[in-house]
Amino acid sequence: MKYNNVEIDDTYAEAFPAQVSRVLITAVTEYYAKVAAIEATGFGTSVIGCPAEAGIDCFVPADKTPDGRPGYVIMICHPNKDKLKEQLIERIGECVLTAPTTAVFNWLPFERLPDKTQEKRIDVKLHFFGDKFEYQTKVGDRNVWAIPIMGGEFICEEEYGYKKGVAGGNFFVMGETQGSALMGAQAAVDAIAQIEGCITPFPGGIVSSGSKVGSKYKFMKASTNEKMAPTLKSKVPDTQLPPNVNAAYEIVIDGLDEATVGKAMAAGIKAACHVPGVVKISAGNYGGKLGPYKFELAKLLQ
Amino acid sequence: MKYNNVEIDDTYAEAFPAQVSRVLITAVTEYYAKVAAIEATGFGTSVIGCPAEAGIDCFVPADKTPDGRPGYVIMICHPNKDKLKEQLIERIGECVLTAPTTAVFNWLPFERLPDKTQEKRIDVKLHFFGDKFEYQTKVGDRNVWAIPIMGGEFICEEEYGYKKGVAGGNFFVMGETQGSALMGAQAAVDAIAQIEGCITPFPGGIVSSGSKVGSKYKFMKASTNEKMAPTLKSKVPDTQLPPNVNAAYEIVIDGLDEATVGKAMAAGIKAACHVPGVVKISAGNYGGKLGPYKFELAKLLQ
Amino acid sequence: MKYNNVEIDDTYAEAFPAQVSRVLITAVTEYYAKVAAIEATGFGTSVIGCPAEAGIDCFVPADKTPDGRPGYVIMICHPNKDKLKEQLIERIGECVLTAPTTAVFNWLPFERLPDKTQEKRIDVKLHFFGDKFEYQTKVGDRNVWAIPIMGGEFICEEEYGYKKGVAGGNFFVMGETQGSALMGAQAAVDAIAQIEGCITPFPGGIVSSGSKVGSKYKFMKASTNEKMAPTLKSKVPDTQLPPNVNAAYEIVIDGLDEATVGKAMAAGIKAACHVPGVVKISAGNYGGKLGPYKFELAKLLQ
Amino acid sequence: MKYNNVEIDDTYAEAFPAQVSRVLITAVTEYYAKVAAIEATGFGTSVIGCPAEAGIDCFVPADKTPDGRPGYVIMICHPNKDKLKEQLIERIGECVLTAPTTAVFNWLPFERLPDKTQEKRIDVKLHFFGDKFEYQTKVGDRNVWAIPIMGGEFICEEEYGYKKGVAGGNFFVMGETQGSALMGAQAAVDAIAQIEGCITPFPGGIVSSGSKVGSKYKFMKASTNEKMAPTLKSKVPDTQLPPNVNAAYEIVIDGLDEATVGKAMAAGIKAACHVPGVVKISAGNYGGKLGPYKFELAKLLQ
Repeated sequence: MKYNNVEIDDTYAEAFPAQVSRVLITAVTEYYAKVAAIEATGFGTSVIGCPAEAGIDCFVPADKTPDGRPGYVIMICHPNKDKLKEQLIERIGECVLTAPTTAVFNWLPFERLPDKTQEKRIDVKLHFFGDKFEYQTKVGDRNVWAIPIMGGEFICEEEYGYKKGVAGGNFFVMGETQGSALMGAQAAVDAIAQIEGCITPFPGGIVSSGSKVGSKYKFMKASTNEKMAPTLKSKVPDTQLPPNVNAAYEIVIDGLDEATVGKAMAAGIKAACHVPGVVKISAGNYGGKLGPYKFELAKLLQ
Repeated sequence: MKYNNVEIDDTYAEAFPAQVSRVLITAVTEYYAKVAAIEATGFGTSVIGCPAEAGIDCFVPADKTPDGRPGYVIMICHPNKDKLKEQLIERIGECVLTAPTTAVFNWLPFERLPDKTQEKRIDVKLHFFGDKFEYQTKVGDRNVWAIPIMGGEFICEEEYGYKKGVAGGNFFVMGETQGSALMGAQAAVDAIAQIEGCITPFPGGIVSSGSKVGSKYKFMKASTNEKMAPTLKSKVPDTQLPPNVNAAYEIVIDGLDEATVGKAMAAGIKAACHVPGVVKISAGNYGGKLGPYKFELAKLLQ
Repeated sequence: MKYNNVEIDDTYAEAFPAQVSRVLITAVTEYYAKVAAIEATGFGTSVIGCPAEAGIDCFVPADKTPDGRPGYVIMICHPNKDKLKEQLIERIGECVLTAPTTAVFNWLPFERLPDKTQEKRIDVKLHFFGDKFEYQTKVGDRNVWAIPIMGGEFICEEEYGYKKGVAGGNFFVMGETQGSALMGAQAAVDAIAQIEGCITPFPGGIVSSGSKVGSKYKFMKASTNEKMAPTLKSKVPDTQLPPNVNAAYEIVIDGLDEATVGKAMAAGIKAACHVPGVVKISAGNYGGKLGPYKFELAKLLQ
Repeated sequence: MKYNNVEIDDTYAEAFPAQVSRVLITAVTEYYAKVAAIEATGFGTSVIGCPAEAGIDCFVPADKTPDGRPGYVIMICHPNKDKLKEQLIERIGECVLTAPTTAVFNWLPFERLPDKTQEKRIDVKLHFFGDKFEYQTKVGDRNVWAIPIMGGEFICEEEYGYKKGVAGGNFFVMGETQGSALMGAQAAVDAIAQIEGCITPFPGGIVSSGSKVGSKYKFMKASTNEKMAPTLKSKVPDTQLPPNVNAAYEIVIDGLDEATVGKAMAAGIKAACHVPGVVKISAGNYGGKLGPYKFELAKLLQ
């Protein structure tokens, strides 16, 4: 099929389950909330080499947060629940507790969630940092700890929800030039940023180096996907790039559930298809071996 | 002493050695170089809970980089050389190789360095990702690998310098209100950002929650420094905060050598002292038990 | 009254009518839409010395714009309709037509508007720039001109709505220190940015130099309001600053109608009141001589 | 000739004289200095329709400014000296005096300037705003006015240098796709931003709609340059675009003198030539009718 004159490959993205937590970081101004959110979600592109997959989900204006201050929601994902807990503790403890004027709140029991997974909680006991000067109090209807620190008091909840979310939603943006593919990928990321409940964990939301499982080097579990490399188009027999494609970028999406990831994929693909020089959209899958979730591109764009 | 009418505490900052590497990340535009640099240095405030201390050092304009493209220098620090190597591999492999249009170069054999530590190199063998499609080539006079990827070719050097640098340079900005202390700390960070050869690894460069060694909770190695907490001023007998101080922030600096850290401390302190409501500057030390480097505030400001 | 322990002055803001237009600027990515919006709304703080009052109203994601690309809505205001028309032509012609990848659409017939003022239109005949190479076409259901330019084609509507809006909504944020007042004003601006249908036209949304009508210099129509100047507190007999206030900033709001300006004032004041060291909120009026709109602070916060 | 395999057209850019002033805006932090600089230089792309040409020149770190605070240098240009004076007064008065925490200093008697034009001064008498509460004082060795305002005191010099500079330095970046041409133009702007003494006054530094003198519409002085429009390549007999070019962007540079503009052009062109898909660089001239300055591309790149 075609969307806005761009070829949509007849294929699907394959995704897999991951444990997901959502944390609201508030601060005195939007800038300082963002500073903490960026630090707390860095070094978090892929669990292949990073300790977690993490990113900024959405902004929450001051009148919608528990403490009347602006905030950003971050999402932290890991296949393993114990690793997720470890990462919540380290990333909040090292990157938010230390950040100026911040407070943290659980943001998973999100009223739009249809299931009952909110009962699952992870304890994040930062209050022991208070050396017995900490005390319990309320912010709105939430039970929080107040820890006296240099900047004033750090406010945090103790329990954070987690649920089985969906990791690895993806699509490829193929362009006639690197610039076209990059602007297409950027437009996609800009669009997905407006969808609440998901993140694009790679740098700036964009993946430049797609991989395949395995390698000619036996000690490598994954390696470059030569079928997607434009400089190898004439050197490999089975390239997946059309003749007029000279660069491709991948967008990877982690989200709270299938519906959100599908919505994000659709918004991103549509936006990319409005960029001149973007000529094809495709997606990555492993024939169903890797994960249970399938996102057919044609269905998403109906 | 006083500087610009602000009291400078008669004390010193105590710092300790750490292994440091510097990596140049270039990209098609300044924006995409920064995107990769931010991702690669995130979750990197303190080795107490993060896998490394990391931050953006400086910008390098296109006409000063090996490949004629704009770039950012990042610095990655760890007390342990093997951990530093691991972090270089993971952060470059997961956060730069994956980022759109980037290339990476060693940036430690910096001509200003007076010593011979450049002979010390860490191998970062990302080229195996190329699955035997990679090849060696030159960018200017540098030997690099070219790895075919979706976005084109990823260019990287294989060897990265490291040296014994200085971690934990620090000072405290004390203000009449939280806003004054925060603006003072921000002015300090803005000034230090102009000094090449150092980073301020905490979120936005500012630490809100200073700590002391030990805790009343036996399982905690560190805890809040109650003597620096403004809400505890009347509750602890030995507060270090003057009566007119209601918030304090700490700036922590890691750098290539003592001279650079000292220069950064001086620039930061001076800038903070130009902010209305900043009333005192101090620094943290452990009586010389922690590290061999001492930065006396009075000497820095001479 | 008090809000969050901050004193709310028993007074009102006085505002006056102005002609207002809203223009949507879209571009290939969010960044390039913002670049054009910033240029088109600069030098636009007050019609006392600027050719218009202008600012960015809100972001519109790609799936909500006529051309499927991300965009920013800007607002341009002037008491005089002919001057407004002149400014629309010059600011769109010089700052948007020239900006890379942009398109412009009328954004005033906003479905939420309850009145019928959309019938009022201003012609902006940029298509003559096309030198008879321009042609009429459709984007969605909108009639637009396509002008061939270097970057491709510039798409623009010809008619832009205008209506009688409300200019000069305002409040003062008073702080114990400059830093507190500034962080309070910043928090207010961050909150107001979330309210669609209004702008804060001053630099970064904040006014530092409030004025009174008249001056001891006969050739000056306006001059500094000495009653609000902290350094003159002990030198003028009728200061309006409490003893513990050492800095004040004003937020000025222009909006589509009274309801929107009131909503923005409430959101801004509430946000400012969550900043430590903010001790009082007041507002500016001229005893009803200047304008017909009164915004009583106490009513806004009910 | 070719540079980095990109064709450099055998032509020259033609530029003309303009009166130029440089103003340093400092503030409590880099952010607030930038906020004021952006507002003061907006609506300033071309004197054809804007009241001045204006832009941010460079950042000055806190230890290099008269008041020990970070600052941005802005440049304001106009062919007419009286109009330049009017614009200095209005832009500083409305966009810097009103901005939080700012101060302004003359920045033209720049020690690197070889000529003696610094004797030429423009009076900017903002201090009358002080209503006789203003007073004269010193910041370092500079005589300044202090005006009591809400935020504290506004510090400003009274005299600003101006000199005959060079306006309209330019070059075109031509790309295989819009994305390539745009990334090329962006790389050029990023590079020019590092050259002190010049600005790129168009939105984000990039011009999308190049023009020619005259029009088929008699009332239009200028109109689209159809020879540079990619969608008209097959419709006009004398297109200047090669078959493989599908978009072009222009960079326009105003600077203090010929040498600076030439240096900026060279830096920008070189940077653009490192972007994949950029295939040709050209420049605009009017056969020497418009201005006395000629910048031959080939000479610049030697």
